[in-house]
Amino acid sequence: MKHNYLDNIPLEEAKQRFFDLVKKDFSHKSEEIPTAASVGRVLTEAAYAKICCPHYNASAMDGIAVKARDTYTASESSPLILSPDKYTVVDTGDPIPEDKDAVIMVEDITFEGGKNVKIMASVHPFQNVRQIGEDICMGDMIAPSYTEITPPLCGAMLAGGITKVSVFKKPSVAIIPTGDEIVPPTENPRKGDIIEFNSSIFSGMLKQWGTDTRVYPIIPDKKELLEATVKDAADNYDAVLVLAGSSAGRDDYTCDIIKKLGTVCVHGIAIKPGKPAVLGKIGNAALVGLPGYPVSAIVVMREIVKELVAFLACKKAEKEQTITASLGKRIVSSLKYREYMRVTLGKIGNSYVAVPLPRGAGIVTSFTKADGLIAVPQNSEGIEQGEQVEVTLLTAKEDIESSIIVTGSHDPIIDEINDLMKIKGLPFSLSSSHVGSMGALNAVRAKQAHLGGTHLLDTQTGEYNKSYVEKYLDGKDATLIKGIGRIQGLMVQKGNPKGIKGFEDIVGLRYANRQLGSGTRILFDYLLKSHKIDKESIDGYRNEEFTHTAVAAQIAGGNADCGLGIYSAAQMYDLDFIEITVEEYDFIVNNDFAGTPAFAAFEEIFKSEELKERMRRMGGYRFG
Amino acid sequence: MKHNYLDNIPLEEAKQRFFDLVKKDFSHKSEEIPTAASVGRVLTEAAYAKICCPHYNASAMDGIAVKARDTYTASESSPLILSPDKYTVVDTGDPIPEDKDAVIMVEDITFEGGKNVKIMASVHPFQNVRQIGEDICMGDMIAPSYTEITPPLCGAMLAGGITKVSVFKKPSVAIIPTGDEIVPPTENPRKGDIIEFNSSIFSGMLKQWGTDTRVYPIIPDKKELLEATVKDAADNYDAVLVLAGSSAGRDDYTCDIIKKLGTVCVHGIAIKPGKPAVLGKIGNAALVGLPGYPVSAIVVMREIVKELVAFLACKKAEKEQTITASLGKRIVSSLKYREYMRVTLGKIGNSYVAVPLPRGAGIVTSFTKADGLIAVPQNSEGIEQGEQVEVTLLTAKEDIESSIIVTGSHDPIIDEINDLMKIKGLPFSLSSSHVGSMGALNAVRAKQAHLGGTHLLDTQTGEYNKSYVEKYLDGKDATLIKGIGRIQGLMVQKGNPKGIKGFEDIVGLRYANRQLGSGTRILFDYLLKSHKIDKESIDGYRNEEFTHTAVAAQIAGGNADCGLGIYSAAQMYDLDFIEITVEEYDFIVNNDFAGTPAFAAFEEIFKSEELKERMRRMGGYRFG
Repeated sequence: MKHNYLDNIPLEEAKQRFFDLVKKDFSHKSEEIPTAASVGRVLTEAAYAKICCPHYNASAMDGIAVKARDTYTASESSPLILSPDKYTVVDTGDPIPEDKDAVIMVEDITFEGGKNVKIMASVHPFQNVRQIGEDICMGDMIAPSYTEITPPLCGAMLAGGITKVSVFKKPSVAIIPTGDEIVPPTENPRKGDIIEFNSSIFSGMLKQWGTDTRVYPIIPDKKELLEATVKDAADNYDAVLVLAGSSAGRDDYTCDIIKKLGTVCVHGIAIKPGKPAVLGKIGNAALVGLPGYPVSAIVVMREIVKELVAFLACKKAEKEQTITASLGKRIVSSLKYREYMRVTLGKIGNSYVAVPLPRGAGIVTSFTKADGLIAVPQNSEGIEQGEQVEVTLLTAKEDIESSIIVTGSHDPIIDEINDLMKIKGLPFSLSSSHVGSMGALNAVRAKQAHLGGTHLLDTQTGEYNKSYVEKYLDGKDATLIKGIGRIQGLMVQKGNPKGIKGFEDIVGLRYANRQLGSGTRILFDYLLKSHKIDKESIDGYRNEEFTHTAVAAQIAGGNADCGLGIYSAAQMYDLDFIEITVEEYDFIVNNDFAGTPAFAAFEEIFKSEELKERMRRMGGYRFG
Repeated sequence: MKHNYLDNIPLEEAKQRFFDLVKKDFSHKSEEIPTAASVGRVLTEAAYAKICCPHYNASAMDGIAVKARDTYTASESSPLILSPDKYTVVDTGDPIPEDKDAVIMVEDITFEGGKNVKIMASVHPFQNVRQIGEDICMGDMIAPSYTEITPPLCGAMLAGGITKVSVFKKPSVAIIPTGDEIVPPTENPRKGDIIEFNSSIFSGMLKQWGTDTRVYPIIPDKKELLEATVKDAADNYDAVLVLAGSSAGRDDYTCDIIKKLGTVCVHGIAIKPGKPAVLGKIGNAALVGLPGYPVSAIVVMREIVKELVAFLACKKAEKEQTITASLGKRIVSSLKYREYMRVTLGKIGNSYVAVPLPRGAGIVTSFTKADGLIAVPQNSEGIEQGEQVEVTLLTAKEDIESSIIVTGSHDPIIDEINDLMKIKGLPFSLSSSHVGSMGALNAVRAKQAHLGGTHLLDTQTGEYNKSYVEKYLDGKDATLIKGIGRIQGLMVQKGNPKGIKGFEDIVGLRYANRQLGSGTRILFDYLLKSHKIDKESIDGYRNEEFTHTAVAAQIAGGNADCGLGIYSAAQMYDLDFIEITVEEYDFIVNNDFAGTPAFAAFEEIFKSEELKERMRRMGGYRFG
């Protein structure tokens, strides 16, 4: 069991080393292609017009071409008659005959007895004529070197007689997934199989960045085979991405192979996630060993590979939009790394609020849910709640502005409401996070959410939610609106192998608990107290899950024997269920939000027959 | 010669009619594709995870898997020895054996005599373990209906065991170019030939918007043939764009054919350019007759077809960024139309300045040069200079901010300097416009340009530029820097068929003049005066061109016999040249700009050997 100690090179220095190495003795390849198919490509040299546009004097109107001099005496008080030899009928775009130099619009002429034409006004030379070179003059530079060809530029070059252009070749990138335990996408993986989805993420990103991409078949952990594959890729592609598996030995393979065949300039970058990246070069190919965890690798793709692709394409890397937001939750960060946090974003009142998502490098859904990224600088201990932070946008600003921030207690119906909003074409979405019922109160009070889901039992009165809202929100900032009834109970393994009949039977079993502040946790603690069970006697009490489905997954997967949760989660995982109570799951609404069209849309869906039908199918809900 | 009178329907109403018609009885087609290839596509339905991710308890570290309970007594003061039956060696990603529940990092263990392991700290259950469902729980909604699939979402779906997804079919669009005089791109068009470049512009735009596009061969003006082609396209594509030629009859064909085969809902929109558009439907296909002028058609593409494509793809049309800028030149606009102005943009000091480009519907280069678009509302008479206007960006904001605004007198070396900046990788570009030498003084004074090119002869002193700068700029805001000497003279047709020997010989000939305020015009007027020639006797005096090449193009094309201009323009058009004078073409620099890195970059190129080499090749320049 050897362990590899990595460097910890600051990102800017790592990039400097890498791009110095990549650019050394590098020359871009070019090709000549038809201009008509050149949109999106980059000119290797300035484009000069070969002909004028128009390349002849063209009529700008439908009408008659005349010699301007012949019309000078015409006026409304003294109209002029032109005989057929003095004019030529022209349509827009037609050439002006050599002996004519102006056009009179069809609306301004009348035919007078046969072919004679009456005009009521004069025209001056070149009036209503598109003169030679009006748009483009031969020899004019239409675009300088290294210009990315837009659709209008493509048209302008064709108009200027440029039928072929020299452009840089599209960058070609090879992706090599590696690892014995890595398997192609499947819905039936065996224990220990790791589904290979990283190559799909990265080839999707590369496609958006405009490269030609090849994904090699998965290469098992055989050094010679990997070496041969890396060599083949380096010989045939501009850049090679080696996707490390997650075992330690493999990173060493990648680094050793690049060292053997070429040069390694960086192994270990002071960023988190993303540290264990390898940067180097083999022959003319740039080599990147990406970390195995998807989030780490996405960060390296965004921070380094994106710029590499731009360099290879001779384009500027597209700069992403940023906004300033108020941080919704304190971030603690390491002094050793520049740390990238995924956040959700919402607009509450007039300001944007950024709420950090789970940080784990393996949590790919943190990128799916993220609306933005915050980079906490190296040498910073973190950022306090409420501080203004710069956020790089991953979601369009207008989508963030039409997003309804729902937080608090987890219930799958939140996702179903979001789905129905989309299906009904309502211009809003729900962005939800699971912070428990108490979290809902806090977030709505702090104006970090529009809406919160809550099911808090007042153990004194037996009522749900009301006393909490009165106590924590003071009735001023928010209103409680009636939600649904939900059946809470104990989820147990299929067939109830532990023979659980009631709550008191959980003693001595492995329990899957919920996080502090969640309504289900409060219910659990209340039940423990009323059954006089010491929480310290519960195996698993300190191991907290954040959603009903996560608790169900622990039980279904054998990590626990039981856990409190809602009926629909038990259904989903095919677990047995012992009903304990019907609780009231209500919504707290920020009062400023309550009058908006977004809230009206939420209510429309919440009250819809479609949602009721879905709740019936999921089971365990009571609604009026 | 019949003429077709069009409607003038406000844009919003036209869109309403069109989209009501298109959406009526429309149903989107879908297909099932491998998730791995789904980036950029749109989900027809919500995606629910089929498995958990991780789908087993996986080690998050390299180290040893243990039963947490076995480690509770370990501490630094009392280390614990674990015998081989108490631990299993695991790499990151390996499954945790059934009888273990935590992992100790490899860094935290030491081997003690053979296979025994010493640990100095305890671990709690599930420490360093990625629990089942940590990222995704089976049954969780990963994304709602109608979500555009991003690379991370593609990865998350694969991680959740979704190997195939149902997505909407890509919209398919047919483009039908029409017209007898329309010819495929060529560098040798005959007089009257119109090069067909519109289809390349539109297929480029459609490609960027994500459609499958087919361009039909050019259809001549035969109604039956066009009708058969439109019918074939409507049967096989979601949308059909018919590109009208520029003759009047043809628009009628398009409209008549759509009416005959389906429905026309709009013929004529109150926008400029873009008015003569036709909107309708044949069967299930949306039909758009685009105006023949490229700029008109681009406007209709942007304002209507973009949204059509988004609807067909079930995506939201991407919203373009806007900025607020100060208008650099008054715009007069018609009350009858919503008018789209192309503008260049620059940042002078702290504010953006938008300068309108030529408005002609045939000027495709106005879109190539444009950094933004201003829409002047219908019922507005225009916008005054200096007013704040909202500009839709066509160029990235950071590119606008690194753009050096050069205005004033036209000289091809401005374009050459820009090209050399690109080639040398300097992070700036030149955005140039031709407003004459006096325009340079005005623009720099009004802080609408960083730099201006000028060659103004003081007829009293015989000196160039100095007295003008003193008079108009008062020495405070701007500095004059030494430029180059340029040979000015009379450009005449090859072989000098009119036998011109000197300036006095221009009397009685057709002359190509430059615009008022240009240095060349001032020189011309001075020469007329000193030669005692009456300007009214000059044929063509009132017909103004804006560049030296445009004057050369008029002479080469036979519109004029001679014109004043610089040697390099005559060279380019293979014209004969009669030298008149060597003038001083200098630069006026805004003082705020003079100290910036952008100006340093300009000076570096201006003084470079590469530019001198290019000037030598172009001919007619004198430099120190």
